[in-house]
Amino acid sequence: VSAVLHGYFRSSAAFRARIALNLKGIAFTTVAHDLRAGAQREEAYLALNPAGLVPVLQIDGVALTQSLAICEYLDETRPDPPLLPADAVGRARVRALAQVCACDIHPINNLRVLRYLKARFGQDQPAIDEWYRHWIAEGFDALEEELRRSPRTGRFCDGDSPTLADVALIPQVWNALRSQIDVGAWPCISSVYEVALALPAFEAALPDRQPDAI
Amino acid sequence: VSAVLHGYFRSSAAFRARIALNLKGIAFTTVAHDLRAGAQREEAYLALNPAGLVPVLQIDGVALTQSLAICEYLDETRPDPPLLPADAVGRARVRALAQVCACDIHPINNLRVLRYLKARFGQDQPAIDEWYRHWIAEGFDALEEELRRSPRTGRFCDGDSPTLADVALIPQVWNALRSQIDVGAWPCISSVYEVALALPAFEAALPDRQPDAI
Repeated sequence: VSAVLHGYFRSSAAFRARIALNLKGIAFTTVAHDLRAGAQREEAYLALNPAGLVPVLQIDGVALTQSLAICEYLDETRPDPPLLPADAVGRARVRALAQVCACDIHPINNLRVLRYLKARFGQDQPAIDEWYRHWIAEGFDALEEELRRSPRTGRFCDGDSPTLADVALIPQVWNALRSQIDVGAWPCISSVYEVALALPAFEAALPDRQPDAI
Repeated sequence: VSAVLHGYFRSSAAFRARIALNLKGIAFTTVAHDLRAGAQREEAYLALNPAGLVPVLQIDGVALTQSLAICEYLDETRPDPPLLPADAVGRARVRALAQVCACDIHPINNLRVLRYLKARFGQDQPAIDEWYRHWIAEGFDALEEELRRSPRTGRFCDGDSPTLADVALIPQVWNALRSQIDVGAWPCISSVYEVALALPAFEAALPDRQPDAI
């Protein structure tokens, strides 16, 4: 095994990297960094990634950061099965769908942001939960409408096999379910989630299947 | 002119798209949507982008969303000059640098988020300014360290010509300067900003050069 994924079981970004590695059939070992304990701020980890965020993927003699960049690297160096469609317009659509989760939802709901709201703005848990649900609903409303209206949508976000869009979406749906959000309000998203989790690549990447799960 | 960019002069994401279009030498017209007045939530615009966010690029008969996906599309369909390095590891580095701005900084400081802090959490302007500066400092510290230590860094973030990393960084530095943040604390970032703004492609994309600037 030559690939090492530095992550945390509950991190959406690490979850994305696990799905992509599994879809590509790349064997990897996991090094867990407990984000709640601040392990990603330890000196040895900062040497690997000065941003102090997970994941980092050590592969092919380099250390890669940022989950979407990691997925694109895996897709470029291990093209089969592809994570992006063959046509440029399709690739733009899939990347845009992935970025709704990775840019418009997840960063705002990240642990470090929720902690800021609590510690510096004195917000209580109900207020933080409302914030969390608000940004998921904003993003899922947009995603649902795009999935509903596009003839490109299939069993997965784009056609009938998983792409980068599903790699980003499934962890976000998992987060929503964990926060007791009724995802039935977004039928296309819910359907993709069920179809994806029937695949071992997604199922094995679930947070509660990870060695550091608590 | 066949390309139409839907944007807003002060939007970082639209700013990125303008830089990429300029670097590629693609003529385009601009349709401005005043984000402060909620123009991106009007029905006609939502039909174009259900997320109600800018930018949207109409080009080649399609409407593309998400600034980084737009840049990648332009790079795939108009490869010269390239926005990504020739090697997979270099592309991963450039994408990761771009994503520090596009995922780790900008979404948290976006107008809609600041408005939530003000309207629902009752935060005043000094508290919001501190939030804004905090996330820029977190991201810039990480970027600066990566630029400082990597032999790949040149006059630009990766080598001596502009890439997707600079396309994402320059709008973020502009935001920081506008918020009276002393970017001298990050010498590599400051240097890239100066070098980039000497190019017409970056200079013409500046917010205050846009027709809707106020």
